[in-house]
Amino acid sequence: MSLIPPRTLRGFRDFLPDTMLVRERIMDVTRDVYRSYGFAPMDTPALEYEEILLGKGGAETDKQMYRFEDHGGRRVGMRFDLTVPLARFAAQHIQQLGTPLKRYQIATVWRGENTQRGRYREFVQCDFDTIGTQSLAADIETALVIHDLMRAIGFDDFEIRVNNRRVLAGLLERLELTQQATEVLRAIDKLPKLGHDQVAQQLQASGGASAAQVADLLRLTEASGHAESVLAEVTDLVRGNETGERGVAELRELLAATTAAGVDAAHIQLDVAIARGLDYYTGMVFETFLGRLPEIGSVCSGGRYDNLAELYTSQQLPGVGASLGLDRLLAAMQELGMLRPIATPAPVFIPFFDADRLHEYLKLAARLRMGGIGVELFAEPKKLGQQLKYADRRGHRLAVIVGSKEFTAGTCQLKDLASGQTQELPLDADAAPLIGAIHDLLLGQAK
Amino acid sequence: MSLIPPRTLRGFRDFLPDTMLVRERIMDVTRDVYRSYGFAPMDTPALEYEEILLGKGGAETDKQMYRFEDHGGRRVGMRFDLTVPLARFAAQHIQQLGTPLKRYQIATVWRGENTQRGRYREFVQCDFDTIGTQSLAADIETALVIHDLMRAIGFDDFEIRVNNRRVLAGLLERLELTQQATEVLRAIDKLPKLGHDQVAQQLQASGGASAAQVADLLRLTEASGHAESVLAEVTDLVRGNETGERGVAELRELLAATTAAGVDAAHIQLDVAIARGLDYYTGMVFETFLGRLPEIGSVCSGGRYDNLAELYTSQQLPGVGASLGLDRLLAAMQELGMLRPIATPAPVFIPFFDADRLHEYLKLAARLRMGGIGVELFAEPKKLGQQLKYADRRGHRLAVIVGSKEFTAGTCQLKDLASGQTQELPLDADAAPLIGAIHDLLLGQAK
Repeated sequence: MSLIPPRTLRGFRDFLPDTMLVRERIMDVTRDVYRSYGFAPMDTPALEYEEILLGKGGAETDKQMYRFEDHGGRRVGMRFDLTVPLARFAAQHIQQLGTPLKRYQIATVWRGENTQRGRYREFVQCDFDTIGTQSLAADIETALVIHDLMRAIGFDDFEIRVNNRRVLAGLLERLELTQQATEVLRAIDKLPKLGHDQVAQQLQASGGASAAQVADLLRLTEASGHAESVLAEVTDLVRGNETGERGVAELRELLAATTAAGVDAAHIQLDVAIARGLDYYTGMVFETFLGRLPEIGSVCSGGRYDNLAELYTSQQLPGVGASLGLDRLLAAMQELGMLRPIATPAPVFIPFFDADRLHEYLKLAARLRMGGIGVELFAEPKKLGQQLKYADRRGHRLAVIVGSKEFTAGTCQLKDLASGQTQELPLDADAAPLIGAIHDLLLGQAK
Repeated sequence: MSLIPPRTLRGFRDFLPDTMLVRERIMDVTRDVYRSYGFAPMDTPALEYEEILLGKGGAETDKQMYRFEDHGGRRVGMRFDLTVPLARFAAQHIQQLGTPLKRYQIATVWRGENTQRGRYREFVQCDFDTIGTQSLAADIETALVIHDLMRAIGFDDFEIRVNNRRVLAGLLERLELTQQATEVLRAIDKLPKLGHDQVAQQLQASGGASAAQVADLLRLTEASGHAESVLAEVTDLVRGNETGERGVAELRELLAATTAAGVDAAHIQLDVAIARGLDYYTGMVFETFLGRLPEIGSVCSGGRYDNLAELYTSQQLPGVGASLGLDRLLAAMQELGMLRPIATPAPVFIPFFDADRLHEYLKLAARLRMGGIGVELFAEPKKLGQQLKYADRRGHRLAVIVGSKEFTAGTCQLKDLASGQTQELPLDADAAPLIGAIHDLLLGQAK
């Protein structure tokens, strides 16, 4: 029989234990932060009716979606983000769940993207949203969650960039350019790539703006520096326009409230150049950049929207939320040397080298687990050296070594696998001294 | 614009917060138990080459598999279990990872099954395996993990039924029926459904067994009662056959070793009638039944196999493992009234009812989170009664009530939402007395 070559599809990955332990840790931390604000988990199917998924997507995501006919002849697709399923979910269940609905979803999505840009076709998104309220308090909380999340994951040097779509909308109203909003936003979005002059040209050409209008638009999107001076400049630009003034007031309140809640002002930056997509977000928008790796792009983005589920229900559902891109974040942590490779979740290793004493090894391992300690007992009675090599490769931190000599004497050797230091301890009925010593060593290593 | 009806595909489910909180808890407990034995997480893609997935499956799973052509014209399929992907994974990475490889995978699988039997087309499996060792210690550990898992999830009344395929194999050898093993196993598998007489008939008809052979076969598979008497009976039946005697010895050692490790003998039952599939398992096999709901079937099953990845590599990879069926287990827990509905992960609720004090509410919530307490601050400054109704519906346990009177006095009301009892506490800079009182109340409620 010829063998089938074992391989994964292009753009898909196996996660080996050392990588997966890190992924699980980051997902746990993310979940803990979301939960600490009262966001509750929910989940939706990986497969949905194609018409549901095509509903909101643009031409790009439609093209990338994995879709096919199922066994019952239905057209189905694999979810390509968590926003469209959330919209469908909210339309279906919001009556039962009530508002505000605070939810998170940490789940896999699939896109048949071009892998040449180093993109994956399967990746994990970590979304949280507050649905059914227009209260600015929910926008402020969104910024606080992003802040706590980045801190909890281990970043000290990051910047949450904040803007409010009402500011630009207000300026467009004042300049009477609202009709051309799409063209104007598209041109402004290219500012980082094309620069001032080319964007000015585009604004005049496709946006139909006058030189004076272009000057105001670019004065707004290029305003930078200290938050107070940017706010003064922006206030000046939208003066007299209600929408614009509301946007400025909301930004001002967000900055004040996050500071009051204890956030270092360095972590929240006003950035009036952010637009984030053309038509979905309507109020506050957020992007999160790493101080030591800004070029990787935003690792956590989101904003406020007016009408989440308009394709599926006539009920107006405003909301605000953001999404952590797990794979991009992990790539960054890898590059920044923030990950240390460990292939075992159990800190303690017990070599099994007196073949006749399996029952006693099992009893010892069970006792340590009762004491809250993760323990791997080696599966085969091999030579001690071989077993310790295995423990070293896996990244176990301590070994509890008991041979026939120790069993007879009622003792054991506790070995620190990093330093090589060994201490002899009594092995009494409840292994209390051993458990105590292990906890002490693990706490000491964690420092 | 006409609305798209919001709905899920038949056999697929949305998980609302109250259900999802329970699912996450069970998955966490499962993961903690696997980890406490040194099993490490790994993951594989949801989509694989069709030829990989078709490789091992029988006609049934091939038919149920969701498969289609991807954007690059490749034939792909969605994984229908975690065993086939594990086999492919092991063939691909075992050289790098080394043996024994102890891994777990908690992941979603898809099968286009007939939903009329109440089956779902999307469900979660929680598998763990020890690969690359023939040591009986790994089989024993598998039973211990299942035991600890059931206990950790909250079951006191359950039975892990154990058998060893070598026993029946040995008897077939002794009876010179090895050639007809498949037919014999197929007939014996029907024993619970068809009963003694019909199975005896089938054994003679399709298995070609004599009346004396049938008597021995049924004497083996119907042996029941105390472990010692079953073992004596079985020993008698396979006497002189090496395979059979090894099977009996392994069962005997498994029973002794699990008892030595502290497992109550009531939780491990010898059941020589279990066959578990026709050709995959070769040694020990496990099934797990709930004492109060045996009819739901086995919630955690597995066993030892000789050659995991034979389709993908010439390297022989023996192993042993088991799989917890999360959805079946949760259905059982639901039926047994073991789940209590809560829709929030945050125990504490802070009503937001003095609209001018948002900054102070945010500061207070941040302080409680620093103290390790999950807190939801309501998003809108509504009437207190409305907000408390929301808190009640969500299942928050405590409310910290601060209005303008309390802010001025530097106090707050801590209210137990179940009992209605309220205590007044000082609200000083670090909220220490409040944090202490909350921890006390939550610990008290947990008792």
